[in-house]
Amino acid sequence: MSKPFVFEKPMGMRDTLPVLYQVKQQVRTVMEQEIREWGYQFIQTPTLEYYDTVGEASAILDQQLFKLLDSEGKTLVLRPDMTAPIARVVSSSMKDVSYPIRLAYDSAVFRSQQREGGRPAEFEQVGVELIGDGTSSADAEVIALMVSTLSKTGLQEFKVAVGHIGFLNELFVEVLGNEDRAEELLRFLYEKNYVGYASHVKSLPLSSIDKKRLLDLLHLRGGEEVLKSAEDLTAVGGRKAISDLRELLNILALYGVQDKVVLDFTLFSHMSYYTGIVFEGYTNELGFPLCSGGRYDQLLGEFGRSAQAIGFGIRLDYLLEALSAKEPSAPRSCIIFSAENRKEAIAKSRELREQGRSVVVQDISGVGNVDEYSGRFQEVIYVIGKSGKGEAR
Amino acid sequence: MSKPFVFEKPMGMRDTLPVLYQVKQQVRTVMEQEIREWGYQFIQTPTLEYYDTVGEASAILDQQLFKLLDSEGKTLVLRPDMTAPIARVVSSSMKDVSYPIRLAYDSAVFRSQQREGGRPAEFEQVGVELIGDGTSSADAEVIALMVSTLSKTGLQEFKVAVGHIGFLNELFVEVLGNEDRAEELLRFLYEKNYVGYASHVKSLPLSSIDKKRLLDLLHLRGGEEVLKSAEDLTAVGGRKAISDLRELLNILALYGVQDKVVLDFTLFSHMSYYTGIVFEGYTNELGFPLCSGGRYDQLLGEFGRSAQAIGFGIRLDYLLEALSAKEPSAPRSCIIFSAENRKEAIAKSRELREQGRSVVVQDISGVGNVDEYSGRFQEVIYVIGKSGKGEAR
Repeated sequence: MSKPFVFEKPMGMRDTLPVLYQVKQQVRTVMEQEIREWGYQFIQTPTLEYYDTVGEASAILDQQLFKLLDSEGKTLVLRPDMTAPIARVVSSSMKDVSYPIRLAYDSAVFRSQQREGGRPAEFEQVGVELIGDGTSSADAEVIALMVSTLSKTGLQEFKVAVGHIGFLNELFVEVLGNEDRAEELLRFLYEKNYVGYASHVKSLPLSSIDKKRLLDLLHLRGGEEVLKSAEDLTAVGGRKAISDLRELLNILALYGVQDKVVLDFTLFSHMSYYTGIVFEGYTNELGFPLCSGGRYDQLLGEFGRSAQAIGFGIRLDYLLEALSAKEPSAPRSCIIFSAENRKEAIAKSRELREQGRSVVVQDISGVGNVDEYSGRFQEVIYVIGKSGKGEAR
Repeated sequence: MSKPFVFEKPMGMRDTLPVLYQVKQQVRTVMEQEIREWGYQFIQTPTLEYYDTVGEASAILDQQLFKLLDSEGKTLVLRPDMTAPIARVVSSSMKDVSYPIRLAYDSAVFRSQQREGGRPAEFEQVGVELIGDGTSSADAEVIALMVSTLSKTGLQEFKVAVGHIGFLNELFVEVLGNEDRAEELLRFLYEKNYVGYASHVKSLPLSSIDKKRLLDLLHLRGGEEVLKSAEDLTAVGGRKAISDLRELLNILALYGVQDKVVLDFTLFSHMSYYTGIVFEGYTNELGFPLCSGGRYDQLLGEFGRSAQAIGFGIRLDYLLEALSAKEPSAPRSCIIFSAENRKEAIAKSRELREQGRSVVVQDISGVGNVDEYSGRFQEVIYVIGKSGKGEAR
């Protein structure tokens, strides 16, 4: 082997081999069908976008972008998420379609990883965007659809944590008075570093009442009862967020998914464009969210077609991990023939395929080790020798 | 609109909007099912590969590669074809799976375009590779599968032209004596510039008999009778190719696809790794091939696991163009409700979705222009007002 380097893949890049591919395809098909039944239409956008268009609008850190130059020296990026490209499409090719618009996608997105053995740098997301509808009905629909889509894949135990960016912003401005200080606290929440948050709050030059308000925030997780405690924390600013969430819970109950939802006022997503409700889906099998979403009412304006909008994205790789789907691949048969029986072998394969079965038809002279080869199949039919009689193993 | 640039896509990059997406998905599903029934297993490889691994092994011109640098300064490419990545997988993760191996893919590939309005720079290919089997059975299987896959999509009128790289090489070396001269003639054939080929042949310092042999090559297209004429052109070298093709035609007849196949000894593909049989699929609707393939018995050796191999790839964009598939999108219904009737609307939507229908459920307060919005659906059900009675439009 003169070129050992020849086998390597770039950092964070993975192959999907046959068995996993098949499981993935089954899960993907179920999800797409559910999303279509809710009236969302799938679209596809290019892998490469202009940095100035989509790279900047995306919420992904610049250092995580895969960048390249086109022949004219313009910077291109491999799309780091689908929300910004869909905003571009809605503002250009679909600009004459009136709001609301319901779109869906199943696409690879790319985020450069700095360490080997770390997270994948290319992964598939299945998601939706509901654009041009700012109602609580829209909020609830998107969360209910995410729950329903996950349930259809067979995922049993999962919860969706729901928070509100508006509540956090208002509380922090009320207590801290300026946004820089809020930034620091938000970073602790984004990192889910609650110990760090608490010790930082204690170090701040605040009245003990205000410190308590900030510390009490950490306990605002649970069912509807949490809304009452939240009201006690905020003077006026956060009330709108609380009433949004109350209405959301009522509607989610109509969808029958209220038992999947928990409130979590500490939830702060890395997607900087979120403006209202945010949510993340969890299962016991994973220590991190397998899906997330939120309301982003400012992003479309950057593309010249203002609209309120909300969406979610489900990571297919994490979902498969949570399903720990180790289903066997579909049964495959193999007809092994010698040249003089080719006609019979081909006829037999046609017959089996017409029954929808997966059948390999293999010339025995093309096989090195027949025993080893035939061991790969659930059923092997030999059509060999002068008699030409088929013989099942 | 402060940022007009915001709408643009990089050169050769395209969006796939809902109606086209749906047609594409239907065609893709039919193709994948057929390929699976023939016992091929789908895999997926990463979008980015090392230039040293896959970029160099690929037959795509260097200037057509999208290149970028990773954080360690190594050059990456967006995969320009799937044959080289599959050779990498077969030689690494699948190195313990004995030959023959039947793999399939449905993947985007990337080839940079130099002109605006030209060909797409990202396009989807559905294809197979049969690796480790050098028999005519394998050649015929791959061509028969390509024909069968195209037929299943509903494509009616198409032909597969089949040639043989071995025949061309042998004939040119016999007549011209050196490979540089052969290169020039091959370039004319690759460009399908037969007038240029003929006038170049006439200018060569050759006997009139040899010139006639080279010119007669241009007439070697048609049915089985062409094999006899081909025998007259070549002394010894081309005989192996001719007997390969004769056996191929016999086996294709067993598959019942002989009427789709025409011989074309002038066929020379741009894929420099082809070594034996090559083929291209045509339809009347397109002036260029919508699929192609061939035997490549050297490529796997570059990855350290020598094997004879053959495969095909079908371009999904060209196929859709040939199908001129303008099917309507699936019927969608919309339930428009006012807040007091939300419960009834959600219940109704659940009922319709359980029948497998695609149903949007829309809060009327989230719609700007109800008339315009409702015009988008085949059926609109209003659940509005105190009575809450559903009323179909």
